[in-house]
Amino acid sequence: MHTLRQPDDRHAYTLSAAHPPIAAVPCGESIGVETVDAFGGALRSEADLFSERCPGPPRSNPLTGPIYVEGAEPGDTLLVTIERIEPRGDQAVTALIPEFGALTGSAQTATLDEPLPERTRVLPIEGGDLVWRDRLRLPLAPFLGTIGTAPDLEAISSLTCGYWGGNLDCAETGPGATVWLPVKNEGALFFCGDAHALQGDGELTGVAAEMAARVVLRFGLLKAAPIAAPRITTDTHLMALGCARPLEDAARMAARELVRWLADEADLDPLDAYELVGLVGELRVGALVNPNYSVAAKIARRWVDQLSPRAG
Amino acid sequence: MHTLRQPDDRHAYTLSAAHPPIAAVPCGESIGVETVDAFGGALRSEADLFSERCPGPPRSNPLTGPIYVEGAEPGDTLLVTIERIEPRGDQAVTALIPEFGALTGSAQTATLDEPLPERTRVLPIEGGDLVWRDRLRLPLAPFLGTIGTAPDLEAISSLTCGYWGGNLDCAETGPGATVWLPVKNEGALFFCGDAHALQGDGELTGVAAEMAARVVLRFGLLKAAPIAAPRITTDTHLMALGCARPLEDAARMAARELVRWLADEADLDPLDAYELVGLVGELRVGALVNPNYSVAAKIARRWVDQLSPRAG
Amino acid sequence: MHTLRQPDDRHAYTLSAAHPPIAAVPCGESIGVETVDAFGGALRSEADLFSERCPGPPRSNPLTGPIYVEGAEPGDTLLVTIERIEPRGDQAVTALIPEFGALTGSAQTATLDEPLPERTRVLPIEGGDLVWRDRLRLPLAPFLGTIGTAPDLEAISSLTCGYWGGNLDCAETGPGATVWLPVKNEGALFFCGDAHALQGDGELTGVAAEMAARVVLRFGLLKAAPIAAPRITTDTHLMALGCARPLEDAARMAARELVRWLADEADLDPLDAYELVGLVGELRVGALVNPNYSVAAKIARRWVDQLSPRAG
Amino acid sequence: MHTLRQPDDRHAYTLSAAHPPIAAVPCGESIGVETVDAFGGALRSEADLFSERCPGPPRSNPLTGPIYVEGAEPGDTLLVTIERIEPRGDQAVTALIPEFGALTGSAQTATLDEPLPERTRVLPIEGGDLVWRDRLRLPLAPFLGTIGTAPDLEAISSLTCGYWGGNLDCAETGPGATVWLPVKNEGALFFCGDAHALQGDGELTGVAAEMAARVVLRFGLLKAAPIAAPRITTDTHLMALGCARPLEDAARMAARELVRWLADEADLDPLDAYELVGLVGELRVGALVNPNYSVAAKIARRWVDQLSPRAG
Repeated sequence: MHTLRQPDDRHAYTLSAAHPPIAAVPCGESIGVETVDAFGGALRSEADLFSERCPGPPRSNPLTGPIYVEGAEPGDTLLVTIERIEPRGDQAVTALIPEFGALTGSAQTATLDEPLPERTRVLPIEGGDLVWRDRLRLPLAPFLGTIGTAPDLEAISSLTCGYWGGNLDCAETGPGATVWLPVKNEGALFFCGDAHALQGDGELTGVAAEMAARVVLRFGLLKAAPIAAPRITTDTHLMALGCARPLEDAARMAARELVRWLADEADLDPLDAYELVGLVGELRVGALVNPNYSVAAKIARRWVDQLSPRAG
Repeated sequence: MHTLRQPDDRHAYTLSAAHPPIAAVPCGESIGVETVDAFGGALRSEADLFSERCPGPPRSNPLTGPIYVEGAEPGDTLLVTIERIEPRGDQAVTALIPEFGALTGSAQTATLDEPLPERTRVLPIEGGDLVWRDRLRLPLAPFLGTIGTAPDLEAISSLTCGYWGGNLDCAETGPGATVWLPVKNEGALFFCGDAHALQGDGELTGVAAEMAARVVLRFGLLKAAPIAAPRITTDTHLMALGCARPLEDAARMAARELVRWLADEADLDPLDAYELVGLVGELRVGALVNPNYSVAAKIARRWVDQLSPRAG
Repeated sequence: MHTLRQPDDRHAYTLSAAHPPIAAVPCGESIGVETVDAFGGALRSEADLFSERCPGPPRSNPLTGPIYVEGAEPGDTLLVTIERIEPRGDQAVTALIPEFGALTGSAQTATLDEPLPERTRVLPIEGGDLVWRDRLRLPLAPFLGTIGTAPDLEAISSLTCGYWGGNLDCAETGPGATVWLPVKNEGALFFCGDAHALQGDGELTGVAAEMAARVVLRFGLLKAAPIAAPRITTDTHLMALGCARPLEDAARMAARELVRWLADEADLDPLDAYELVGLVGELRVGALVNPNYSVAAKIARRWVDQLSPRAG
Repeated sequence: MHTLRQPDDRHAYTLSAAHPPIAAVPCGESIGVETVDAFGGALRSEADLFSERCPGPPRSNPLTGPIYVEGAEPGDTLLVTIERIEPRGDQAVTALIPEFGALTGSAQTATLDEPLPERTRVLPIEGGDLVWRDRLRLPLAPFLGTIGTAPDLEAISSLTCGYWGGNLDCAETGPGATVWLPVKNEGALFFCGDAHALQGDGELTGVAAEMAARVVLRFGLLKAAPIAAPRITTDTHLMALGCARPLEDAARMAARELVRWLADEADLDPLDAYELVGLVGELRVGALVNPNYSVAAKIARRWVDQLSPRAG
């Protein structure tokens, strides 16, 4: 299998069509992609502090890409099946970064309070577990924190998310998931990175268990089938994503998109789909710390399948 | 077992110490409580519309109570173990109510748009399932939408929620759960109602599958142990609840309370507890439609237990 | 002129029909009302700290009332013309209270940050000015921070605001203004207090220049003319108030109410009224610190008058 | 005086360093700039509808620029004094655009409601007034809705706003104002457009009275004096701007920046500056409809001047 990597000083800090593609890849073929961690590997021990080692926004969260997907044209939907995510080292790292996180004053939720103290925590990876302070072994649950395509016209920081995907920080983008992304440029121009070994809902401290990773992906295309927001499908669920602040708007965007998708898949009246999502839908908070928050609205595939044999 | 019921015209529309108790109940004993549905039973067929049959806020969501819990004094915490919730009829009812719900203009998110059409949907209960439009059989997952104590000084509508509990609409308050509520008045003055046969996260349409229910409860007390916000414990999780708008504030309140609780239970530094909740915490959205939204911040009991044998 | 006062231990901490009226007052007659400051007079020097001298919520912000307005019935609108507001002492007081204010972590915007230091500031009143730290003389601009009627069924803390008025903390409720309040109970049951000598938009520190005051009011009634939200009229403006979180919802509520009012007054199509408010409307933030935020949506009376001679 | 104009098909839809400058301009010299309206001039009569005539986001709100300011280097602050804004035609245009505006469901506040009807309104300009439906003559109060510099690394749609300025839609950027913008790229790379003949607070319908304009500007530089957010100074006020959702976060950002600025200008302790802004500060809502909302926090220059002779 071919594996794509990028020199350390060439990673992308924006999702943008202005970057030259690092490779052109056909659909249907498994490819390896190496990613660096959200700190660009700068935090290796607990003595390494973000404020001292990292340049800070918008030069944070370096991505691998763009990858040119052969045959992708504006108006298509790119399907990215995540086959595997493996750590490329023997540790993950998390941190407290001043004025970043859900339970501290931040750039947006601006306060005059003294920030929480900065610190870095190394989490050794042993036998499929993260070791937390020699006290707990937390099973790895890896996923890609950042996954997206180049947006239309804009060049957007890898720290935020939107219709193009980006820094979704949603734990659903792990092995087995297929992520649906809008194609706005020829070749789709796919970016990914920010692999997380483990993250709680909301990524509350602002930083997950960050790791360099080797990812195996497979691309597919839905031709001339635009989507308004990213989607995720798994063996068990269909999900639509909303990216916004406040958090209720992210939830509204996700839920409306799921209602419309369900109405279409199951040939339901939109108000019936709304009712059904109201009864059995699920909401999962991605990140509660980025410039846009993210929420996945989910419905179990079994309900969709019972309503319609064509559900994908 | 003794069963408490209340004449239909005597149900409470506020959580308040001004209502005379309907019974005094000792701790440690299972008692039955009959509740009416959130519509006071006024919607029995799909021809019954909320705007025609129901008086509207604040005369919505009638509660059974208050129940005087013997021995409860201000500063205690009331533990309410929910042993059983059973439908008292053969159907549940859901509805679309104009200007109410997450995906429509509402009293707070005020718009000039035409409201969605009003309607009532009957959901027959058959063999432990809800039947949705003759097309799906959805398994019952019953819980108490509204559960709380009388607040300090105030008399608050049963439609909202806060430190006293109230209209949490959080699917975690089902059989097997123990709900922790602050005691602000002698006897605690417990109220409950609004049983839901099934509800998706967010209660997005504004209304769950509403049913009259027979509930079996058992009270306990933590003496002189005040809590700042409702909590829920189950076999698998510890949860703290936040009630606020916007939704991120509800999540922040819940998460901070969980962090503090975990720090206390596991004798952790609060920033270590924050880090751990950031790695393995979960967020579950209760309702995204009430005057206050609700979020449960959760942590699996196994992590707490490994850190501290005294975890409760 | 008759002046109403209340023993210090009898002030109301809730707006509620459960309190016995302190007086019955006819419409059309000027009456004096004495109010205490939001701290109940407990902070007299800079050595007096809120956390040491005041009982804290919900026993904060004591109000004078209820005043029974003769002839007021549910469905009416109470018009309260504020004729005069005068300090009852020679100083006002402001303070920083831990976990309260717009630029610090708070009960709702919960953080783990260390709170800002507590402090009390005395502001001597000299010749119609507030003296700030011997450095500035700030002209008094007095208004009633809290003004409202008893809500329907509920008993609500004097710290929040809603359709019943309450703790609006909107600098528009000063001398010359007429405040419109819904009547939900016989006699309207009017409460006021929390006079502010001066307050910036948003009451950002959580506390204005608080003072005990003597207020002169005159009541009027619009019979059988319910309103959905408080209104204020002055010589120059019509205003509708919205009370909610997040702040955009308070603005939406206020703006929708103003649009509907303008459409009615000027006999305009609602979308034309929306367009006009979009072109010449003003938004003024009341408080950005209370459980509900408040916003006044305003339109200059001259535009309304030109469109309709009947504008009030 | 030199006047800069740009071919219609060359206007910028993003603020970005990727666009070639249209001119290089020295500091201290008045220059004319021609701008097109937010619709690119496509709506000329009430029969022209946005959905039919305009390409829609992100190809909305065309800007003139970038203008290279001689001597500007990253870390400087660009001062843009607006000397004059004059209409380039005899009418302005406003519109209702489906799913856009504060009082209707939108892309973020997603609902299932039917959108408000689309429409275009022409507002003739006569003798310094806008004529509204032959019924009102509204005095022009022109300002630049969009004014900013190229951000660091990113290329951001002209429809939103942030630290780089952009679509602030804040009525304070009119003749006589000096707008302070961060310099992130050599030459600053200044963009402007979206002139408004008149706009209410919040730009509630989503669209102001839009007009093509001739603007006269003069640039200045504060060398090696970075700012975190845009500022505006006028004869009477100092203002800091916050751009975020929810609206309270925009207000917090603006207020914190103003507090810090005041503390610096007047050599005050930050908590004293906070207290003073709490007593005499003002908040003005820019737009309540864009991807980021905007708020200006203001303080009257006279208070700053009394505290410090060096206040600028």
